[in-house]
Amino acid sequence: MTIKLPYLIFLADAADDVHAKTSFGVRDWRPDACLGQWKLAGCGTELGLTNMTAAHAVAQGAGSLLIGVAPVGGQIQEHWIPALVEALDAGLDIVSGMHSKLEDVPEIAEAAKRNGRTLHNVRHSDRKYSAANGDKRTGKRLLTVGTDCALGKKYTALALTRALTERGDKATFRATGQTGIMISGDGIAIDAIVSDFIAGAAEWLSPDNDADHWDVIEGQGSLYHPAFAGVSLGLLHGSQPDALILCHDPLRTKIDSSPAYPIPSLSDAMALNLSLAKLTNPAARFVGVALNTSKLDDAGRAAAFAKAEAETKLPAFDPLLGPFDGVLEQLDAI
Amino acid sequence: MTIKLPYLIFLADAADDVHAKTSFGVRDWRPDACLGQWKLAGCGTELGLTNMTAAHAVAQGAGSLLIGVAPVGGQIQEHWIPALVEALDAGLDIVSGMHSKLEDVPEIAEAAKRNGRTLHNVRHSDRKYSAANGDKRTGKRLLTVGTDCALGKKYTALALTRALTERGDKATFRATGQTGIMISGDGIAIDAIVSDFIAGAAEWLSPDNDADHWDVIEGQGSLYHPAFAGVSLGLLHGSQPDALILCHDPLRTKIDSSPAYPIPSLSDAMALNLSLAKLTNPAARFVGVALNTSKLDDAGRAAAFAKAEAETKLPAFDPLLGPFDGVLEQLDAI
Repeated sequence: MTIKLPYLIFLADAADDVHAKTSFGVRDWRPDACLGQWKLAGCGTELGLTNMTAAHAVAQGAGSLLIGVAPVGGQIQEHWIPALVEALDAGLDIVSGMHSKLEDVPEIAEAAKRNGRTLHNVRHSDRKYSAANGDKRTGKRLLTVGTDCALGKKYTALALTRALTERGDKATFRATGQTGIMISGDGIAIDAIVSDFIAGAAEWLSPDNDADHWDVIEGQGSLYHPAFAGVSLGLLHGSQPDALILCHDPLRTKIDSSPAYPIPSLSDAMALNLSLAKLTNPAARFVGVALNTSKLDDAGRAAAFAKAEAETKLPAFDPLLGPFDGVLEQLDAI
Repeated sequence: MTIKLPYLIFLADAADDVHAKTSFGVRDWRPDACLGQWKLAGCGTELGLTNMTAAHAVAQGAGSLLIGVAPVGGQIQEHWIPALVEALDAGLDIVSGMHSKLEDVPEIAEAAKRNGRTLHNVRHSDRKYSAANGDKRTGKRLLTVGTDCALGKKYTALALTRALTERGDKATFRATGQTGIMISGDGIAIDAIVSDFIAGAAEWLSPDNDADHWDVIEGQGSLYHPAFAGVSLGLLHGSQPDALILCHDPLRTKIDSSPAYPIPSLSDAMALNLSLAKLTNPAARFVGVALNTSKLDDAGRAAAFAKAEAETKLPAFDPLLGPFDGVLEQLDAI
């Protein structure tokens, strides 16, 4: 899969920022890859990019239309089809994270064929994976794990990849979800893999590498989530992380989508992740705690960092704010 | 999925008993569902059933041809096609546990259409599952878990279902693998489910039931297997077992397909399974240890039972031999 950049981001009629979450992720982490935005009537969100038609974007060098809106149910909407066909006719590929495949819409399939364009369904993979073999690989690996879903595992992996590369270290972000794939241009939507091959796909995602190279792997789900813990465990085993970072939202007390389930303590979550990680890498260890402090003021943030550091004896940081020096120092010791 | 019984079992050119494992499982657990066997030239195994052609089997009331051989790679073999077409023309459905789908072979697809027959690909499901919700369901559930793959989790679940129903209790075997589905006529090949829905499929498999009804769920994989632990965990969480049985082979010291990985102790395996099971059912407990003693003599078997009982303080049994009274007593206390 080679995605042609830069993107024209298709916001369609996204009602609000939440429904355009993917777009904000790509804009924030790959501003160089975002040429413009395209809204339809009724759009209630704004990326701050230049509004463009498909033809205008192609004239400026755009490579792909990125579907940057996630409607409930994850299906391609009927009323988007004319715009998607227009994009293909103008010369763009399309990148989609929808559950339904682009080529399952006959008009889109025909327009892609007519124009020789590529349709990227990042939630679907045509690659065949093997079952994991559990063999140790060369190079170093960091995996972000969480006390719940949707609290910063992707942003933490991106921020640490940036912090490592900015100081000259070799590091690669390894995407395991659709937004991560759109940001990095490659990866595996691990939750869309047939379950026999979760760990095998994770092994494939971070192959042998230089001894001083870090693969920084985006975590998925949580061992404490009643629906997704199997995905988290397969990813943990296949990633064979040398370093783990626990991601946490200090304001959350219940699993977001399953409020009958409590958020674990940091020390419980670390102990469970570590005991399971050691199956495939006995040297696994935690190196830091990433806190989502976006809803806290400065005093609240400082208090959250202090509490997490007292509980875990590890450096705490916010992936959007840092500080990263403590966690980098931990990584240097591996 | 409603599979038409009884089966004509297609042994094809299975080299030996190991390659016909599925057939032996169905013959042993559903003798009432096995009308005859059909061998091709070169077949090196024997079920002890009457040899029949497809037409002969149909005349005696057969409903389906069961592909009872598993070649390396799990693909439908080119030289089977004439026999499979002959079966469809004679009036049989086909039941397959192959990785490839029956309808992907044009001759088979055409013959099924021409004769109005049904093709069952038990490793593939057309059902759409939801992500698990983690809600408690009515009725009682038992899940078999293992220190490794392929050491008796299916046989243990089948044996306990039989022991419960023979004494008049309400119990249903819930199949999670292809042979189990062929035996019971329904179920989910859980390792073929998209990983986001492992636990959701397990919830679907054992729905609300009478308060005194036991769902006896076939376990898959092992938390100690570097490739399949994610499947095991999703099945554990979605099953919400009240009762767990640990299945173990006392002669095995290494994970069968990954010999760099040791088999855990019974007490470690119980502690880990139990701590993870408690996420979705805080009342989960172990009720017995199922030992595969097929390679032990009487003295070795007695010693293995005594050792397991001393280590776990639970009744030990062999699923093919019993005794079941101890474990049934444990179940009565739930």
